[in-house]
Amino acid sequence: MSTPVWAKTESAATDDAMMRFMAGEDVVLDRELIAYDITASVAHVRALSRAGLLSDDDAAAIETALGDLRQRLADGRFTLDDRYEDGHSAIEAFLVEQLGETGKRVHLGRSRNDQILVATRLFTIEALGRLQANAVSCARAALTIARKHETDPMPGYTHLQRAVPSSVGLWMASYVEGFCDAGELLRLTTQWLGASPLGTAAGYGVNLPLDREGAARELGFDRLLINPMHAQASRGVHDVQALGSAWQLAQVVRRLGWDLTLFASAEFGFVTLSDEASTGSSIMPNKRNPDVAELMRVGAAGVGGAMSELQQLTSLPSGYHRDLQHSKGALMRGLRAAGQVSSVTPRVLSGLTLHTDRMRAAIDPGMYATDVAVDLAAEGMAFRDAYRRVGRELDALGPGDPDASLARRTSPGGCADLRLSELEARVEALSECP
Amino acid sequence: MSTPVWAKTESAATDDAMMRFMAGEDVVLDRELIAYDITASVAHVRALSRAGLLSDDDAAAIETALGDLRQRLADGRFTLDDRYEDGHSAIEAFLVEQLGETGKRVHLGRSRNDQILVATRLFTIEALGRLQANAVSCARAALTIARKHETDPMPGYTHLQRAVPSSVGLWMASYVEGFCDAGELLRLTTQWLGASPLGTAAGYGVNLPLDREGAARELGFDRLLINPMHAQASRGVHDVQALGSAWQLAQVVRRLGWDLTLFASAEFGFVTLSDEASTGSSIMPNKRNPDVAELMRVGAAGVGGAMSELQQLTSLPSGYHRDLQHSKGALMRGLRAAGQVSSVTPRVLSGLTLHTDRMRAAIDPGMYATDVAVDLAAEGMAFRDAYRRVGRELDALGPGDPDASLARRTSPGGCADLRLSELEARVEALSECP
Amino acid sequence: MSTPVWAKTESAATDDAMMRFMAGEDVVLDRELIAYDITASVAHVRALSRAGLLSDDDAAAIETALGDLRQRLADGRFTLDDRYEDGHSAIEAFLVEQLGETGKRVHLGRSRNDQILVATRLFTIEALGRLQANAVSCARAALTIARKHETDPMPGYTHLQRAVPSSVGLWMASYVEGFCDAGELLRLTTQWLGASPLGTAAGYGVNLPLDREGAARELGFDRLLINPMHAQASRGVHDVQALGSAWQLAQVVRRLGWDLTLFASAEFGFVTLSDEASTGSSIMPNKRNPDVAELMRVGAAGVGGAMSELQQLTSLPSGYHRDLQHSKGALMRGLRAAGQVSSVTPRVLSGLTLHTDRMRAAIDPGMYATDVAVDLAAEGMAFRDAYRRVGRELDALGPGDPDASLARRTSPGGCADLRLSELEARVEALSECP
Amino acid sequence: MSTPVWAKTESAATDDAMMRFMAGEDVVLDRELIAYDITASVAHVRALSRAGLLSDDDAAAIETALGDLRQRLADGRFTLDDRYEDGHSAIEAFLVEQLGETGKRVHLGRSRNDQILVATRLFTIEALGRLQANAVSCARAALTIARKHETDPMPGYTHLQRAVPSSVGLWMASYVEGFCDAGELLRLTTQWLGASPLGTAAGYGVNLPLDREGAARELGFDRLLINPMHAQASRGVHDVQALGSAWQLAQVVRRLGWDLTLFASAEFGFVTLSDEASTGSSIMPNKRNPDVAELMRVGAAGVGGAMSELQQLTSLPSGYHRDLQHSKGALMRGLRAAGQVSSVTPRVLSGLTLHTDRMRAAIDPGMYATDVAVDLAAEGMAFRDAYRRVGRELDALGPGDPDASLARRTSPGGCADLRLSELEARVEALSECP
Repeated sequence: MSTPVWAKTESAATDDAMMRFMAGEDVVLDRELIAYDITASVAHVRALSRAGLLSDDDAAAIETALGDLRQRLADGRFTLDDRYEDGHSAIEAFLVEQLGETGKRVHLGRSRNDQILVATRLFTIEALGRLQANAVSCARAALTIARKHETDPMPGYTHLQRAVPSSVGLWMASYVEGFCDAGELLRLTTQWLGASPLGTAAGYGVNLPLDREGAARELGFDRLLINPMHAQASRGVHDVQALGSAWQLAQVVRRLGWDLTLFASAEFGFVTLSDEASTGSSIMPNKRNPDVAELMRVGAAGVGGAMSELQQLTSLPSGYHRDLQHSKGALMRGLRAAGQVSSVTPRVLSGLTLHTDRMRAAIDPGMYATDVAVDLAAEGMAFRDAYRRVGRELDALGPGDPDASLARRTSPGGCADLRLSELEARVEALSECP
Repeated sequence: MSTPVWAKTESAATDDAMMRFMAGEDVVLDRELIAYDITASVAHVRALSRAGLLSDDDAAAIETALGDLRQRLADGRFTLDDRYEDGHSAIEAFLVEQLGETGKRVHLGRSRNDQILVATRLFTIEALGRLQANAVSCARAALTIARKHETDPMPGYTHLQRAVPSSVGLWMASYVEGFCDAGELLRLTTQWLGASPLGTAAGYGVNLPLDREGAARELGFDRLLINPMHAQASRGVHDVQALGSAWQLAQVVRRLGWDLTLFASAEFGFVTLSDEASTGSSIMPNKRNPDVAELMRVGAAGVGGAMSELQQLTSLPSGYHRDLQHSKGALMRGLRAAGQVSSVTPRVLSGLTLHTDRMRAAIDPGMYATDVAVDLAAEGMAFRDAYRRVGRELDALGPGDPDASLARRTSPGGCADLRLSELEARVEALSECP
Repeated sequence: MSTPVWAKTESAATDDAMMRFMAGEDVVLDRELIAYDITASVAHVRALSRAGLLSDDDAAAIETALGDLRQRLADGRFTLDDRYEDGHSAIEAFLVEQLGETGKRVHLGRSRNDQILVATRLFTIEALGRLQANAVSCARAALTIARKHETDPMPGYTHLQRAVPSSVGLWMASYVEGFCDAGELLRLTTQWLGASPLGTAAGYGVNLPLDREGAARELGFDRLLINPMHAQASRGVHDVQALGSAWQLAQVVRRLGWDLTLFASAEFGFVTLSDEASTGSSIMPNKRNPDVAELMRVGAAGVGGAMSELQQLTSLPSGYHRDLQHSKGALMRGLRAAGQVSSVTPRVLSGLTLHTDRMRAAIDPGMYATDVAVDLAAEGMAFRDAYRRVGRELDALGPGDPDASLARRTSPGGCADLRLSELEARVEALSECP
Repeated sequence: MSTPVWAKTESAATDDAMMRFMAGEDVVLDRELIAYDITASVAHVRALSRAGLLSDDDAAAIETALGDLRQRLADGRFTLDDRYEDGHSAIEAFLVEQLGETGKRVHLGRSRNDQILVATRLFTIEALGRLQANAVSCARAALTIARKHETDPMPGYTHLQRAVPSSVGLWMASYVEGFCDAGELLRLTTQWLGASPLGTAAGYGVNLPLDREGAARELGFDRLLINPMHAQASRGVHDVQALGSAWQLAQVVRRLGWDLTLFASAEFGFVTLSDEASTGSSIMPNKRNPDVAELMRVGAAGVGGAMSELQQLTSLPSGYHRDLQHSKGALMRGLRAAGQVSSVTPRVLSGLTLHTDRMRAAIDPGMYATDVAVDLAAEGMAFRDAYRRVGRELDALGPGDPDASLARRTSPGGCADLRLSELEARVEALSECP
């Protein structure tokens, strides 16, 4: 590794094993963050220039070199590896190598602390935006099925027991709304995170009239994290909420993964996954496994584990502590887990074959009991009496007509009043609202 | 326990040990929920009446009886205990006892599933509102200190090492903003939760044109959880976000607890807690312990543990499962943990004695190094060179003037530009925004 | 509340709201711990007496009074309530009330810190012993079914897809071994916890030659937690392992809960739970829900949440911190969660009806494919070629004979070699090994 | 990626995006596991040969080729990359490439399910062994300091308040015992995990009289996981206990990290970390930060997060589910986190400079109060009266003699009776006991 930026002399001795322990996964993780670090560096340089702290020429030279670095990273001519302590050091090293004295000026008025804060926040906001887009795609895919099979009957289950006649429309619409609610929380969280930490340095500000508002605007933030100690204290902590919103999305996917896994069993036989979403076994020639549906369940655990790690990591007093370096890995891992399962979901849904005949056949006579009890009650019998009477006469219930039953399920949101257009309007509103 | 509501005959045999296992803590937990259940029951009865499903007389009688029950609960004439399977059953039993046939009509068009959903959501929204109010009180208490000691110098720490001169104003303002951000997330979460599940029955709606919108408005909800299966699926799951917002508050309190605990040590000696917030030891006569500050740290762990429990509990397919009964305990416990630590915080802050002389004395010469380096850089030396030069000449740094140092910390949010009025405006906006 | 033990004067002012916050649930939780505290107090008093630090008369008087207190607690004449700061204070208050001066001598050489440590450890060891006994009962119940239905065929699933013919014997034997492994870990953990903290006072020992070994032996401990700071540091921390071993038990129960819930569905139809383990619905007269099987799943989440809470709580430096007071609640809650689900399991198993006809009927021809491929390979064809050939000719597989298939499953542990006696021997060894 | 092993024809179409999603990190993670997979494959081949299921020539050829593969992996001539679905497929592909027909025979009687189970278990046992060795090294390093500074006084803290005089010996001995207890739990857990899953195939055994015991002995296992479904069910689940034992080690390191971080502050000034364990700041030239001590705290969070992830992941019915693929990553990440922090600890300890003068100077007169109260009590005054009297007369306590105080702290484990030899004997016993 090259000389660390904090070495006071060129020859500062460093011990490699310890340095490696301290560096941890930083360089690898920073590969995902360095583009945001460059973006923030440009905003920082411009703000220095506006405040008269950097000459226009120096600012322009640094900005050009940063653009060059971005390009080299993109096309593989520059690799962030363990020659560098972290991505921030790599940027500074590159600038010094390219620009000499001028390059050394970039760090005026900032610290690696606010560099990582701003880069991580930009990264997180973009990641949540992608998750929100995934939520929209998932909702649309579910809506397509809900529309196509709006009135196709299937059993409704509680306790995994057949309960009342339901419909594919109701089932799939529950995912449309689930993905909307998750997407909405992602949106609210993005809004909550929209405050710039750039210019808070190491948690105590600096002796310079930095144009923090200008830099914030340039980076797309709504407002400042005003207080530098608060900005520091948000690290690892606001990340828990970013992951919390991602968890809601992963949880909707998990429920769908459960449903599909069950419904793809021979016993239910309600759905078949596409070939691309299925695999075989290495020992059993007869197997066709709904692997992707099962894997849809794992995202929530991945996000949840990362949340738990961050909650343990952040039991700390005020001020930066090196522990927080490890918040990056947990955050990125958790967001990736939610991203993976939500990316694959629309394709799973669009490739799904529904066996509506098997669904219809699985509705047995007892499932009409609630209808009958509610009818008796609507006609005047006290509900609890109607319930008991029907309960004692279950065997007398004849084969019902599921379509008729669904047609009368008129409570708002019920099978006869799914409100798909209202749900669609929410999906589309979410898709337009970054 | 009395005959369960789902018994088909009066004499349905039930096994007590098993019933106790199944009932769990329900009856105890429901003591906190039953008031919300009554409120929702009134809205349900009125909606039934508006839809012509209950006569005006019956509706009026039930509503009166519900009011009576509420009163009896309040003054202790009615106790929810293990005579009942749960709070819902107790309400129904009371109505039947008071009104006979009419009482049996209350359950038309609803299930215990949507009863608990709506009661829990009302409870949660109210609890989050209290937490938001706590956040405001905490922020105000911190602001008072920040104002009083706005420019009093104290060391700023990173890595628990003395870093740069800072101020009590900066330190306390970080809490003002921290509590604002937590309060804001509580507000956004309340908004996100503002959708009514009432009228979704057991997750599949009913054969009745319930006036769900009317009931929702009456209960203060903005909108419906439209889809009944989605409403079911929100149980335990949306609770994770309620707890996630509570965790942010508890986490700010935890950081403050850490600071106070450290600063109350003899070695720092920066603060003394009030007598009421301190205790002695059972064996060491000399001890005066900052117990309350230490206990301020435990809320985050309590909330976090509850979140983790819910995340494990909710790995389930669609439809109600009895597992979800246990979501109540975790939710209530987590919210209570956040409530306790945030309730006590304003008093801890207002009772705090600050030893500003010790704080000032703890600022040592090396802490001015960054100022000097930034100054050299602002005068034209490349920052990295200035950094190295100052680093090599640390011993030459004379005793600095902390007040002068702070006065020049002009970056927005820094010691010379704390923006307390802007923060206060945010606090007050939050206090007015339910 | 009475004057705290640490008050230096009789009139020490205490603030009730703060005191309540600090007391937390202590008094309620201590109701479960006070019996252990009394037991340890007796051992402490005897050790003081042996060391000549307490006269024989005083020791006898205190021991008698402690016996009296234990009796009063048992028959309800003494209630631990919020008159006391905690259980330790209540014991001391009782002794002073009963014995005057002599009662004040009991606290010589100990602190509430080692009182709670030793009481909690005794409580934990007893609780783990009960869980181990539960594991044995569960294993025996599973073994009974495995024996009765040793060769009854049922489908074996992977990915919830029908995979190969299996047997009820294999299925149930997996629980026998699962409960054994959980029980064994409980036993090892009990052994690991068998070290006495009594006599470490507040974490720094005392100026007295306490007979710690004697007291430890008397309490049934194998050895000492020698170092007082280590004893302190074990609080909340060793508890995580106690819960970790409880989690293994709860996890085996969770898997069984999942199996029973699925197999009780109409689609599988393999089992029916006893009436006592089933419930109805408040709205659907036709429902018979396997509630107890579902609730068997919740223990693992309860234990896991408690573990997560403790892991967050214990990020602390050396020495007692008041945070640790909250470890009690998490520990007790987690152990109770594991206890509840494991207590009910043997009865669920013994009440289970198995529909072996439905199980047998669910074995379809494709499930013999692996047998055929293995046979071809055993005859000399390379396994991968045999696998491909059978895979391409699945439709040609005729209806197989499940009994014959099982009879040839001769790999150790397989359907034809279940080794139930070996498993039974492990169960019995576990039952004899405290 | 090459054709998956479960393709029935050579041309089975596979979709790359889906395949990538399903493959996850498998190939990367398997780089750590493949050596264990090869070891287990050799044992499997020998067992097949002993059972007459593979000719001696074929067995020898496969074993030689496996040795060749191991060598190629070691020297980089073979790289496990995304040409392969996973490590198991890579091994089979290599054998077929090298040996043609013979290579296809290796999969007889096994499944990727038991391959991964056995490889992971071997990996885990070896990892726990390394952690146990780390615990021993940590304990020895702490013992060296305890011996060197056995009677050097330092303050003992509770609530971070100065409590009573203590010693460096007591402080460090607490870590010796802490590391012993952690090491002991690692040892017990290794013992608990010492059961072979090899030969359980996909969870249902096979039609072959495999020599499972022989293979188990060859791999160093004590016994079998007898039941194939139980073996499957241990995946991800027994891993929680492996991590639980690693967490205990990481937790002791976390406490030490906290102590060192605090004690390295200017306010305490008790220790200085070696240069190699310290870093500077990118903006503050004066900083010397105890980064390694801070990073010693993060391991526990990493392990804890992984435990939480696995607990969520394993809420599943019997039989393999694809979700379990993700248990590998969590397990490996958690074990690595514990390994990193425990590896660095001995060096941190051996490089530590202790400022015993500052420690001694920090013992203030009030800290002798407990000694005085205990003395009064030992002379006959009731302890609670002595406590109150000393408490009221704290100011009268003169400057004490810390050495004398420590010399009289004779309770077993206390400063005057540290029992370092007993602790050392435990450390050495642990080092010899694999």
